[in-house]
Parts: sequence; C-alpha cells; structure tokens
Amino acid sequence: MTRPSDTRDRLLSAALDRIWTSSYGSVSVDDICTAAGVKKGSFYHFFPSKEELAVAACEEHWQRDLQPILDRVFHPDRAPLERLEAWCDAIYQEQKARFQASGHVPGCPFASIGSEMGTQNERLRRKVEDLLERGLFQIERTLRDAQKDGSLTVANPAAKARALHALALGLMVHAKVANDPEVLRGLREQVLEALPAPQRV
Amino acid sequence: MTRPSDTRDRLLSAALDRIWTSSYGSVSVDDICTAAGVKKGSFYHFFPSKEELAVAACEEHWQRDLQPILDRVFHPDRAPLERLEAWCDAIYQEQKARFQASGHVPGCPFASIGSEMGTQNERLRRKVEDLLERGLFQIERTLRDAQKDGSLTVANPAAKARALHALALGLMVHAKVANDPEVLRGLREQVLEALPAPQRV
Repeated sequence: MTRPSDTRDRLLSAALDRIWTSSYGSVSVDDICTAAGVKKGSFYHFFPSKEELAVAACEEHWQRDLQPILDRVFHPDRAPLERLEAWCDAIYQEQKARFQASGHVPGCPFASIGSEMGTQNERLRRKVEDLLERGLFQIERTLRDAQKDGSLTVANPAAKARALHALALGLMVHAKVANDPEVLRGLREQVLEALPAPQRV
Repeated sequence: MTRPSDTRDRLLSAALDRIWTSSYGSVSVDDICTAAGVKKGSFYHFFPSKEELAVAACEEHWQRDLQPILDRVFHPDRAPLERLEAWCDAIYQEQKARFQASGHVPGCPFASIGSEMGTQNERLRRKVEDLLERGLFQIERTLRDAQKDGSLTVANPAAKARALHALALGLMVHAKVANDPEVLRGLREQVLEALPAPQRV
C-alpha cells in the first residue's frame, strides 16, 4: 500500500519536474497526476489547486534540494570570496548537468515561475519573492563576512548582494535562451569583477 | 473600412500587450482577437498560429518601440559611460511607468517569454535569442567605444557586455517578483560598479 506521504512526495516531485522543464501554464493537474502515477481524486486530497501544489513544490525544492547545497557552498568555514566562487560553480554545474540530461538549459525554476506568473498570480509571486530573498540573504551575509575579515569593503552589502544575485539570474536567462550552459562559465569571473576592489573604497 | 495593415497592426499590438502583461501561455488567440477587435477568421488570414503572431509582435516591439529609444540612448554623440547610464535610466523609467499604469512591474517581455517558453518552443526561443543578441551588441559596441576613448579598459568586451545585460535582466526579474519598480533604481550604480576601473587593468 502506498503511504499518503509517498503520494504527496510524488506529486511534489512531479510538479517541480514538469513545471521546471516546461512552464507553469503548460502543465495541468492531469499531467502532474499522470507523471506522479496518482489518481486525480487523491490529488485534491492533498492540494486544493495547482497553485497550492506549485507553492509547496517550490518550498520542497528549496528545503530538499537547495538547502543542502547552499549549506555546503556558504559554509562559514570557507573564506567569503570562496563561497561566492562555489556558488557560481554550483549554478554552472547544475544547469550543465540538466542540459546534458534533457537537452535543455532550464534556468532557475523560481525565476522562471516568477517571470511567467509574477503579474498574474499573487500567491506564486509572493512565494517566489520569499525564495529569492532567502538566496539574497546568503549572499549578503557572505559580503558582510568579507567586510569583517577585510577581504572586501562594500559600501552597501544589501544592494551589492542583489546585484550579484541578479547577475546570476540574468545569466541563467541568457543560458536558457541560448540553450547553452557554457554561457554560465563566465559567471564566476563576472561576479568577482562586480565586487569592489578593496583599494577602491 | 478597416485596411488590412490596420488589422495586422491591431493584432500585433494586442498580442504584445496581452502577453507582456500576463504570459504567453495564458493568452489565447480568442483573447487576442477580442482585445484587437478582430474576427478569428481574419486572424488566420494574417498569422498561421499564436506562435507566429508572438514572433512578429516581438519584432514589431523591437522596431517600433525599442529601436527609437536605443538610437537615442546609445547615440554615438554621447560619451560611452553616459550611454550606459541612459540605458539603465530608460529601463527604470519604463518599468516604473508601466507599474504606475497597471499596478504591475512587467519585466522585460523578451526575457519573460524566453524564461517561460525557452525549453518548449524552438521558434520562440530563437527569436528571443536574436533579440537579446541585438541588445548585447549595443552594449558591447559601447564598451569598445569606451576602450577607444580611454574611459575604460575592458579585457573582454563581449563577456562584460553579457554580464551588464544579464545584471539588467536579472534586476528586472527581481523588480517583477517584488512588484516594486524601485528595485531598478540601483541598476545604474551597480552597472557602473561592475565596470573595471581604468587603473585596475
């Protein structure tokens, strides 16, 4: 017998996978149920709507897939600039692996959902905003740590964190639109160049 | 009597407006025909599909709306760094005006379509790639002009142009997801800080 938590997990994984590899609008509850091997009646036992499933799938992706990577990448035992380099490398490696597996660069799933649905669905927009803020927080903390150990002097760590995060998101859009993960090979160098040199401030 | 070119223009304008303010997937041919005040039979006289209309609407937006702005912003009579500042200001002003008119920050229409459809529709992906390349070209030429007049020394103008363009696209995603055009107020400063200081190279 399938445990309820298995059914819920399968729906979350199928939703993330289908939305990430195509788009929110192109995927129906039927598609997700088929991909998950779950009957439609069961779907509505767990989620009132596709929107609620997508919100839960984004949260699950953060906690299950991203948090462990980010804990490693942004580990305080690493020097701050090494954390930023590891973050850029992790983005490049993930997009490249997904391209090799599927033939498509999928971009950032949160940014893709936000770009598609941001003007249309407040629930999804707010969820994506929350998730992007968590990414920003990691980068801002890294910049503040760099400030403390003297490796950088950043006039406005919040604004610089946003710029570095935006650079990564924008370059993921470029890579998706060119369908070429090698576009992201330059991310690390561009992030480092966007940092103030200590002597400039 | 409505001239055929009027009908086609109305379809192009309605398609751009509807897709930009919502998304490609959420807009049907019926929606576009209703918004344009055009009968569905006439639609297929001009365009074989929604996809072809969207491709033509993107090209029309570039030529009709963006090219005149870019000709002014990137005019060779301006100093190169002033061109980049004017480009950032134009992005901020446009997103702010659209927010004030509609209550939503719409982001870049090309990047939104590319983020939504990039893995699913080769025709749209290639069109968006073509349009983003045109934007990159303007920035790269500006960096090369800055190189020539000594205001910057850029080791790799193509890579730096891509990074500046990606920063702007990413910050437009942030602004859309936060539904706050003021996020883009920082674009100009971050673009300037991402440029190499002449003495650093």
